[in-house]
Amino acid sequence: MSQLRKDPVVSRWVIVATERARRPAAFVDPQSSATDPKNCPYCHDTASKVVHESHGVRVINSSGPILDGSKPFERRAHGLYEVAHSHGSHEIVVETPQHVANMADLPVAQITAVFQTYALRMQAHRENPFVEYVLAYKNYGVAAGSRAIGHARSQIMAVPVLPMRIKDKTRGAEKYFDYHERCLFCDIVAQELKRGERLVSQNEHFVAVTPFAPRFPFETWILPKEHHCDFAQGVVGFEDSLAALIKDVLLRFKIGLNDPAYNYMIQTAPVKRPSAFKDDYHWHIEIMPRLTRVAGFERGTGFYICPIPPEMTADFLKEVDIHA
Amino acid sequence: MSQLRKDPVVSRWVIVATERARRPAAFVDPQSSATDPKNCPYCHDTASKVVHESHGVRVINSSGPILDGSKPFERRAHGLYEVAHSHGSHEIVVETPQHVANMADLPVAQITAVFQTYALRMQAHRENPFVEYVLAYKNYGVAAGSRAIGHARSQIMAVPVLPMRIKDKTRGAEKYFDYHERCLFCDIVAQELKRGERLVSQNEHFVAVTPFAPRFPFETWILPKEHHCDFAQGVVGFEDSLAALIKDVLLRFKIGLNDPAYNYMIQTAPVKRPSAFKDDYHWHIEIMPRLTRVAGFERGTGFYICPIPPEMTADFLKEVDIHA
Repeated sequence: MSQLRKDPVVSRWVIVATERARRPAAFVDPQSSATDPKNCPYCHDTASKVVHESHGVRVINSSGPILDGSKPFERRAHGLYEVAHSHGSHEIVVETPQHVANMADLPVAQITAVFQTYALRMQAHRENPFVEYVLAYKNYGVAAGSRAIGHARSQIMAVPVLPMRIKDKTRGAEKYFDYHERCLFCDIVAQELKRGERLVSQNEHFVAVTPFAPRFPFETWILPKEHHCDFAQGVVGFEDSLAALIKDVLLRFKIGLNDPAYNYMIQTAPVKRPSAFKDDYHWHIEIMPRLTRVAGFERGTGFYICPIPPEMTADFLKEVDIHA
Repeated sequence: MSQLRKDPVVSRWVIVATERARRPAAFVDPQSSATDPKNCPYCHDTASKVVHESHGVRVINSSGPILDGSKPFERRAHGLYEVAHSHGSHEIVVETPQHVANMADLPVAQITAVFQTYALRMQAHRENPFVEYVLAYKNYGVAAGSRAIGHARSQIMAVPVLPMRIKDKTRGAEKYFDYHERCLFCDIVAQELKRGERLVSQNEHFVAVTPFAPRFPFETWILPKEHHCDFAQGVVGFEDSLAALIKDVLLRFKIGLNDPAYNYMIQTAPVKRPSAFKDDYHWHIEIMPRLTRVAGFERGTGFYICPIPPEMTADFLKEVDIHA
């Protein structure tokens, strides 16, 4: 299986594969070859345990799980380090029965079902007392860390520790709230709608903007206009509106940027909060096309250089004709 | 020029190019083609201002500087955001007069001169009262964010803000010191030398280990055995010993992993500290080969999955015959 190990310096938990590790030589020349649809594991899967199925969206357990819910989460010392059993679960969300690669090409109704599924699975994982966070995210394309299978899917990981960026985000939002007694993200939404210079697209319930201090070119955030800290609860009733704006943004990427690889991740509040309706966090989605490799030293320093201003990428994306 | 902009959520400063931005269309199909040695800008450069030169190592100002020391660092509000002139300097360290691509192939004496140069430039930038941190780092290979020019070089950036990971690291080390009254990194060095399971290589003054909770496969840290928080001061007199171990590790990467792209960064203490000899930080170097693209969602969440245990990668690197 694998282990959760804590970096002793920055307190970051990392999942480290142990038993099912690839041999070192397998890293020397990693190859990813596209799968023939005839052999697509998501078109013809009969072996995987189906966890949930509705509207053509199928949730299955990962075939090479790196998390394992069968044993409890117990931290223990390992010399000066800290280690734990990799408690949790890792699920694949197969987004459509059809062999379609990019979520941008799915009908809005199908994307709606995908986001409904995320919300349902998040609520289900919340029942597990060990779970501190549920990550729902997508890797599209080889450059985004996906295998080239050509069948739209995303992933859900329920983990017993808080990811570092979520800690940083909630801490930052708390500081702002402590001082201003207003939600930082609500203020961002209001300011971006007023100024318009980083606005990519919007509908009644959601807004898509490029962030003021982006890490990556064309990085885009989708935020709900209505305040809610929690995705799984806050999205209920608005899934179709969210799906429409996600499709809108993904089509702008696909058409304007020549079908780039991308990642998105839902940035919801931690599972365990003093109050589920605390005002200092506001769920949102980060979407990042993977266009540059400039993230070399950035990975090591946390210091980013964005080679193009977000006002220019917002203008560019806004101009893309998605109805062509 | 460019701007420093602060992410309002996590307080991360980002350099955002403004004037010299590439057009959005330039990101659509980024191409990097190898440069003919006849046209190598580092073999035949006569235009760049030479900032420092010794033992065949030449420091020049970046030709497309993203930092500019001519105007002071002044933060100002931009709505709810914060922005500043991108004060600082950005230098290229051309490591050799020869057209050699990989530092692994330079003689130890030449690598020694490179590290001496880093230390000298760091001390020089310290004189600038706006400078909070000096980053010295290398991107080798296209996958590491470098252009394919084939001439060994590294970069030095003097910046008026603390990079986020440095903040996280110093904060973590402080916490450990507060409790244990010992340096965390000294304890790591002692434990790794005793256990040996993550030891890659060592010499009299330095040790190379894979970290207990790595983010990336084959990630390797080089730490001085002697405690010192500051690279520029602590390395003096030990540059040749450091150069020998750097070459040792880079050769293990080159031979064992088929000449992979890699990054390294010197993780020294912030320029401004209560005392330059405070005991709670300990400089070191992180080296990361860029073998996998799995860092897709990791970039967005700070949650990492390392697909191979560091004990296995240490064993693999240890076995590489670098004298063949």
